[in-house]
Amino acid sequence: MGGSGDVRGRVLRGTFFHAPSPDGFECCADAMLVIDAAGAIADVLRAGSGEHAALAADESGQVMRLPEGSVMLPGFVDCHVHAPQFPQLGLALDVPLETWLMRYTFPLEARYADLDFAARAYGQLVDDLLAGGTTTALYFATVHVPATRLLADLCIKKGQRALIGKVAMDLDTCPDFYRDADADEAVAGTRAIIDHIRAHAGNSEGRVLPVVTPRFIPACTDEALEGLGQLAAETGAHVQTHCSESDWAHGYVRERHGMSDAESLDRFGLVGRRSIVAHANFLSGSDMDLLVQRGAGVAHCAHSNAYFANAVFPLRRALEKGLHVGLGTDISGGPSASMLDAQRMTVAASRMLEDGVDAGLPAGERGCRDSRVDMVTAFHLATAGGAEALDLPVGSFEIGRKFDAIAIDTEAAEGTIRLFDGSAPSDVLAGVLYQASRANIAHVWVDGRLVRSHRDAAPRSKPGLRAGAFAAI
Amino acid sequence: MGGSGDVRGRVLRGTFFHAPSPDGFECCADAMLVIDAAGAIADVLRAGSGEHAALAADESGQVMRLPEGSVMLPGFVDCHVHAPQFPQLGLALDVPLETWLMRYTFPLEARYADLDFAARAYGQLVDDLLAGGTTTALYFATVHVPATRLLADLCIKKGQRALIGKVAMDLDTCPDFYRDADADEAVAGTRAIIDHIRAHAGNSEGRVLPVVTPRFIPACTDEALEGLGQLAAETGAHVQTHCSESDWAHGYVRERHGMSDAESLDRFGLVGRRSIVAHANFLSGSDMDLLVQRGAGVAHCAHSNAYFANAVFPLRRALEKGLHVGLGTDISGGPSASMLDAQRMTVAASRMLEDGVDAGLPAGERGCRDSRVDMVTAFHLATAGGAEALDLPVGSFEIGRKFDAIAIDTEAAEGTIRLFDGSAPSDVLAGVLYQASRANIAHVWVDGRLVRSHRDAAPRSKPGLRAGAFAAI
Repeated sequence: MGGSGDVRGRVLRGTFFHAPSPDGFECCADAMLVIDAAGAIADVLRAGSGEHAALAADESGQVMRLPEGSVMLPGFVDCHVHAPQFPQLGLALDVPLETWLMRYTFPLEARYADLDFAARAYGQLVDDLLAGGTTTALYFATVHVPATRLLADLCIKKGQRALIGKVAMDLDTCPDFYRDADADEAVAGTRAIIDHIRAHAGNSEGRVLPVVTPRFIPACTDEALEGLGQLAAETGAHVQTHCSESDWAHGYVRERHGMSDAESLDRFGLVGRRSIVAHANFLSGSDMDLLVQRGAGVAHCAHSNAYFANAVFPLRRALEKGLHVGLGTDISGGPSASMLDAQRMTVAASRMLEDGVDAGLPAGERGCRDSRVDMVTAFHLATAGGAEALDLPVGSFEIGRKFDAIAIDTEAAEGTIRLFDGSAPSDVLAGVLYQASRANIAHVWVDGRLVRSHRDAAPRSKPGLRAGAFAAI
Repeated sequence: MGGSGDVRGRVLRGTFFHAPSPDGFECCADAMLVIDAAGAIADVLRAGSGEHAALAADESGQVMRLPEGSVMLPGFVDCHVHAPQFPQLGLALDVPLETWLMRYTFPLEARYADLDFAARAYGQLVDDLLAGGTTTALYFATVHVPATRLLADLCIKKGQRALIGKVAMDLDTCPDFYRDADADEAVAGTRAIIDHIRAHAGNSEGRVLPVVTPRFIPACTDEALEGLGQLAAETGAHVQTHCSESDWAHGYVRERHGMSDAESLDRFGLVGRRSIVAHANFLSGSDMDLLVQRGAGVAHCAHSNAYFANAVFPLRRALEKGLHVGLGTDISGGPSASMLDAQRMTVAASRMLEDGVDAGLPAGERGCRDSRVDMVTAFHLATAGGAEALDLPVGSFEIGRKFDAIAIDTEAAEGTIRLFDGSAPSDVLAGVLYQASRANIAHVWVDGRLVRSHRDAAPRSKPGLRAGAFAAI
């Protein structure tokens, strides 16, 4: 973490965009954000106000200024990440879920018994997510307590806001080489992580939080689900799991428990204000009502919907019901680690749900009317919406929120934003959100601390074409 | 164009991937590509052959070597780009097609009457497409002859392989401020561009080609369509247009001409071996048969399908019929200029077409069975498939093809490829295609000439946070 770019106790002057509600965004040109010593936003001074003018005249050096051509956005909140699956991003997406789990994913996750491997993979993941502007991530780890502790340690060290759970999976349909021995182990391991994270000396501000994480009902015994629900109630920890992702998963729970996935999770005490269920494509109207009533949230993963969920989550309907929704990359059920990509796919998938996909059907029978969302809504969900779902005070530039933010350099030569003359704020925001890539993300702050700067990137050590020994990839 | 990285008359040694057919890819580790003086591939020496060993011992300096961790792919062939729309990439995607055209797109395209604006926008576009690995682009320009000449001049100068058409649109439903005055002007302007490109002193190798470009039937009089068909027959030029993109466009042609869009284009002589129709979502089976019979191709634009086409092009069905298909970004009906994004969306959209989108329907009624394609097929379409559709000798590393290629640096620090240990070639290819971003594209060659190198990027002129005058975006 670079000290010089920290903004705790300072004022950051620049233009920002945020979307506190799903229906609109605000652009504040030349604003001044007053950050307190704990990294929270103490005041927001808009251009034209007397306080703004007074501070603008301040020459003490407490006012830092974004460079010309840069804009601030709230940092992105990724509500669904399988941290151990990062090494297979984009791989094996063409096989059925069952094969994907048994042949690829479980063997990969099992490798995290090896802490050296875990350190390498998790370290790269956290660095890359920060570089991509993901200031908060809700992580599934693996069944292993030591590697999950390591992930928490890395997030604490690297400065990412993170919610982390040891995966609980004790049903004997899971492979012998990769599961909890029994419900007791699943619950005890979860408790060990809660204790580790809460007692961590480097985590006194509570930036990293523990999460009770039953993988999904098809991987857990009722005993484990019950124990985990009790643990959540006892500790007040967040809860995450998968719910009604695919025809298969949805049908499995109905067959095993005689009720819907959401209903079954609820009776185990796993659906509360700090619960996030991933995917949720097949939620019924009454399932949604149940989640709304509990204050629980959904992690909508538009990319992985295309590969593993057999349908598109009815996002607009959920928002109309008042359901909390955040977005997730679903690394690696989705092929991209970028929350910019997640926002883009959220919009595209909503359009495909609205219009339908099969040209062989009449237009009126092809899709689900009034399903579209626009990029402003996707931006809201990727920031303030995800924060609301996670019950965290981040995601917008409002007084009292923690300063988790990114600075986008719209003019970065290696970036991909091209704003031509005469752009209205709405066009600047759309241009940024549709076009930006990692090279445009110049600075990333969490809690007012600079956790990543474009300058951090290692210089390219390699020349262009050269003579030298060939090495296979 | 940097002289030192040109490979004409030299040998390039490194690992390459290509997909000459839709059903598989080939990985050649440590191959040697012998490039002739005209930039064509004269020989492909595989590791282990005697010729490979002999050349490997060559110390004359004619053998150039890709750095460790780099792989070559064929350059991408973008089969549908509206060049003038680059400045509105990602903008106004939430309005209906009619509004999008009349309020945003036509006014923007009209600005290309200003050659200074055209030079700036087109120059940036060609630079950016090359940097993104698009070695061949099929461009719609605008109605303006001078700006279209300028686009051709820029492609010739910057070394991109390009097929360029002045847009013909003379129907009085097009706005007065942006259309051809009449059919004669549409045809004469098209002829002027054909003549300009073919006679251009810098284009003796014919790397830039002219294209007869009626915008689409709803923008053209029958007289113009007839004249353009005759011009295509007379000159042998390529033809491009839109066909059956949306419910509206599909229905419009049926109402006006009493036949399908494809049938109507065909009777005007606009469907031939060198014709590419964009989108084609609503082609009937017999329309597809007609295109197959003529040897024409489709530019599949998966991204813009989601915004403007009301359905997903039935790609797999088209491929099974033997239709030539390439991929298009459809700048700016699609929000991304990246052919990597186009490949990714092609796969995702095919999965959504297969599984369907509406969770409210039973699984069996939700989608179109057997519609999926995988990333290898998308890669084929983005390279050899597009080349076949355009009737160009590029798109794979086969003897006789022109050397249009990109080098991907899988280890670029600012890139986004993370390959972990033990990756099989199929995983390397999937990792590259799903994860790569612009910073991974280290070198781009067209016709054996280095047209772009990562080192070309202007150094960042700006420091990080700084004091200084604020400038609004």
